Amino acid sequence: MKAIGTSSGIALGKVLVYKEPDIKVERKETENYNDEIERLDNAVKKGIKELESLYEETLASIGKKEAEIFNAHKLMLHDPEYIEGVKNKIKEEKVNVEWALKEVTDYYISLFENIEDAYLKERALDLKDVSKRLLRILAGIEGGDLRSIKEKSIIVAEDLVPSDTAQMDKKKVVGIVTELGGKTSHTSIMARSLEIPAVAGAKDITNLIKDGDFMIIDGNTGIILINPSKEEIEFYEEKKKKYEDFKSKVKEMKGKESISKDGIRVEIAANIGTPKDIDNVIANDGEGVGLFRTEFLYMDSDSLPTEEEQFEAYKIVAEKLEGKPVVIRTLDVGGDKDIPYLELPKEMNPFLGYRAIRLCLDRRDIFKTQLRALLRASAFGNIKIMFPMISNIGEVREAKRILEEVKDELRKENIPFNENIEVGIMVEIPSVAVHSDIFAKEVDFFSIGTNDLIQYTLAVDRGNQDISHLYNQYDPAVLRLIKMTIDNGHKAGIWVGMCGEAAGDEKLIPVLLAMGLDEFSMNPASILKARYIINHTSKKEVESMLDEILSLPTAEDVEKFIDKNIIIR
Amino acid sequence: MKAIGTSSGIALGKVLVYKEPDIKVERKETENYNDEIERLDNAVKKGIKELESLYEETLASIGKKEAEIFNAHKLMLHDPEYIEGVKNKIKEEKVNVEWALKEVTDYYISLFENIEDAYLKERALDLKDVSKRLLRILAGIEGGDLRSIKEKSIIVAEDLVPSDTAQMDKKKVVGIVTELGGKTSHTSIMARSLEIPAVAGAKDITNLIKDGDFMIIDGNTGIILINPSKEEIEFYEEKKKKYEDFKSKVKEMKGKESISKDGIRVEIAANIGTPKDIDNVIANDGEGVGLFRTEFLYMDSDSLPTEEEQFEAYKIVAEKLEGKPVVIRTLDVGGDKDIPYLELPKEMNPFLGYRAIRLCLDRRDIFKTQLRALLRASAFGNIKIMFPMISNIGEVREAKRILEEVKDELRKENIPFNENIEVGIMVEIPSVAVHSDIFAKEVDFFSIGTNDLIQYTLAVDRGNQDISHLYNQYDPAVLRLIKMTIDNGHKAGIWVGMCGEAAGDEKLIPVLLAMGLDEFSMNPASILKARYIINHTSKKEVESMLDEILSLPTAEDVEKFIDKNIIIR
Repeated sequence: MKAIGTSSGIALGKVLVYKEPDIKVERKETENYNDEIERLDNAVKKGIKELESLYEETLASIGKKEAEIFNAHKLMLHDPEYIEGVKNKIKEEKVNVEWALKEVTDYYISLFENIEDAYLKERALDLKDVSKRLLRILAGIEGGDLRSIKEKSIIVAEDLVPSDTAQMDKKKVVGIVTELGGKTSHTSIMARSLEIPAVAGAKDITNLIKDGDFMIIDGNTGIILINPSKEEIEFYEEKKKKYEDFKSKVKEMKGKESISKDGIRVEIAANIGTPKDIDNVIANDGEGVGLFRTEFLYMDSDSLPTEEEQFEAYKIVAEKLEGKPVVIRTLDVGGDKDIPYLELPKEMNPFLGYRAIRLCLDRRDIFKTQLRALLRASAFGNIKIMFPMISNIGEVREAKRILEEVKDELRKENIPFNENIEVGIMVEIPSVAVHSDIFAKEVDFFSIGTNDLIQYTLAVDRGNQDISHLYNQYDPAVLRLIKMTIDNGHKAGIWVGMCGEAAGDEKLIPVLLAMGLDEFSMNPASILKARYIINHTSKKEVESMLDEILSLPTAEDVEKFIDKNIIIR
Repeated sequence: MKAIGTSSGIALGKVLVYKEPDIKVERKETENYNDEIERLDNAVKKGIKELESLYEETLASIGKKEAEIFNAHKLMLHDPEYIEGVKNKIKEEKVNVEWALKEVTDYYISLFENIEDAYLKERALDLKDVSKRLLRILAGIEGGDLRSIKEKSIIVAEDLVPSDTAQMDKKKVVGIVTELGGKTSHTSIMARSLEIPAVAGAKDITNLIKDGDFMIIDGNTGIILINPSKEEIEFYEEKKKKYEDFKSKVKEMKGKESISKDGIRVEIAANIGTPKDIDNVIANDGEGVGLFRTEFLYMDSDSLPTEEEQFEAYKIVAEKLEGKPVVIRTLDVGGDKDIPYLELPKEMNPFLGYRAIRLCLDRRDIFKTQLRALLRASAFGNIKIMFPMISNIGEVREAKRILEEVKDELRKENIPFNENIEVGIMVEIPSVAVHSDIFAKEVDFFSIGTNDLIQYTLAVDRGNQDISHLYNQYDPAVLRLIKMTIDNGHKAGIWVGMCGEAAGDEKLIPVLLAMGLDEFSMNPASILKARYIINHTSKKEVESMLDEILSLPTAEDVEKFIDKNIIIR
């Protein structure tokens, strides 16, 4: 059976099929609705307690980010609109709490699900999880049969919600298989951060197997073997060993240089979203920050962040990195990232709309405040400024002109900043790659944003399930644009980095090295693996294959070619 | 004053300010609501009569397409939901007809306007026009003070609705200036088809001038001069003469070859939307059809068109063109073109979504029916098949494979078709241009669709007013992609055409000729002008400037360069 590999690694072991308690909710009318309200209050109290201990457990066993979800669930139980809504329903219709809870929850879920917004869709999942918890408590069932797993097992389930994964005994779980979900589902993210091999999208698997069956899963390929032959077990034992050797070799990369077999040094940097992420960058031995997204300042707030707030955030990162480069991207909102208080227009095609630099050049007040904060912070470390969503030279010139204006202001106010601060642009719109020889004359560096570059080059919204199969980072046209950008950058004497997901892709890293990419910026967790790959690749060798790769007809051909001739594992 | 030139040519003349009768509607309650209903019935009857005569007048003076709008208005007056809605309101609230009419109309307009759909937005305008007519009739005011214009005048108005332009005495109107509207508004389209110079977007102009003022307008540049000096009048008289000479020289192009000064022959073809458009192609001496959009078959219907209906439509066009090439594009819906009965998914970014070939490869039933009809029609003329929205080689191969399947079926059924039918693709997604050397090996021709190519290359939805200034067909990166496509097509021995708006742009035609474009496909009305430009351009001369043009930094630089060094007028 082949499904979707969502967390690397191979697992062999006995199966534990996990099914949720099946709680049926029926409508019952009752005159004693005050009793029902009391039952609700008690269940909410107990739910909050459970969530608090789940928070603590997760904080200790996994990390703060993963624990946060239980805080969010707790907030839902404190949300007056939700809980009062249930109480009102109990009162008005004189019904049992279970029914009122189900009805109100379904109402909100249908509301959330009907809105095309990834954030609200996830809230719908959270709400489902929270309401299940209350229903279970109301039914008097104790939670967590994943808490006490007897022997090392591969967990097989329809899906796992955060409450399940949090209370699961991580030492006993060697693999996870779910019927639902994909690479970005909660379970997959959790599995990756726990380094547990996982496979998702395994249709009907809970009915195909039973507790105690023996199973092999390959989280790299998505392959699932049920009750395999002796040969298969041997083959995968061997494969598992190799993979684990690879993992430990990757860990040894800490403290090493990023340098190819033939002596080409590159920089392996990290993409971060908030100053908190810096610890993770340092723990993974990142050589700098290739992309510091600044949206968090604007999104976790009800109003525009002040210059001071921004300055502090940028300064901390610059200082913590002690002179290592930090590329800070100016505000990139609009598109899928809305900020309510900015009252951005509703658009027919937000990805082709009013966002990022387009908004900043229009809202000078916002832009200048950010540039002031960035320049001031540049006195405290190696900050570089990067403009997103550039599509033509006019925008670059205008953004630079405004930056000069701000510099003048600071000079007049005798506020120090790095006079030689580097200014670059994201190369994420096809026009910039195609015209990169000319753009290179205007800036100090390029950073290729492959996620958007692929979307525009192939005219595919990768969030759109009906066509996401057309989104492919191995597309030869995209690779040509990348090479064009690197070549043109070098001809003009500027460095070229990449901060899209492709920069951390183990198959593409050797190819990008061969193209001459100077900086690879990625998820901190991928840094050491990337370094291992760089250190085991001969740039010259792959360079000699580039012409062939770029002349292959399809993305599938490119991936196959890399698998056959290049990949380092 | 500078506004938007919307219809070419220069006009000098006295101003006639046109203001609509200002009818105030007040709510009046009445017990005699049956009288009100009778007033409504009479007004509707009179309105229908007016619309019928407007239809006849317009049919005679302008053409069928322009007259159709009055038929649409008549249908609105026959629409039971609308008129009965007004009657019900009169009855239920016992109010005067004017008030009921206004309320019901406003309700529908707000309904239409809140939907992001260009089609419904236009329906809102139509409804406004229709309700104004009824209110005017109810007020006992005779319509049409544009019917009796005493001397040749430039009409200045806030905006003109179809009823206004239809009843206007075209011989007396030498120019039109409106405060509202743009290149694609109704008035502009009407002005272009009547060859009356027009300028739109002239803010507040109705207050800046008065009847009898002297005015000059330049429909090419959007310039408006009020009470100009003698020198200005002389300058524009001269310019007008030159422009009219040019126009008459353009008319002389009929029956001539399309051949450059240095002997390069190209094909100047037409873009059409329905078989009816063919008469216009022949009248304008088109050398073929470079783009036959087939959406009309699917959109003017409640269900999928049958193979027979499609076959007839394709056959008529092929026959009428008597062996001249007809490039028929397979279904290109989705995106902004919805077809209700297909129940297409609501998408966050429809322009990057499930549309055109993506839909056809998914809905084989629809695709195969169209291909059967196309192949059968190919026995009756020089039909070529073109696939839209291709983004990777896999799609081309799959589409061709399905075409071969259909051919096999027809062979087995002994149904004749052109065994050597040419198959091509639209080059409208950047990946295809970038990878055009490889794509060229798969097809018989390319047709560059600049409208979409520009949108994707610059990541700009040109329908989005907040950023439409970033959409620019002179963008040097776009021009590079065009050149790349033409060069790669020729290297592989296939012909390359263009069916986007750029192909009919007088500034770009010489540049495209120099790049080696083989076929220019455009609005039929532009064909003779394009031929004039081709016949007065030396390909070699412009070729020598290409490197310089493609290395210019901005679109503005490119346009200026062309204005200075190339443009033919």
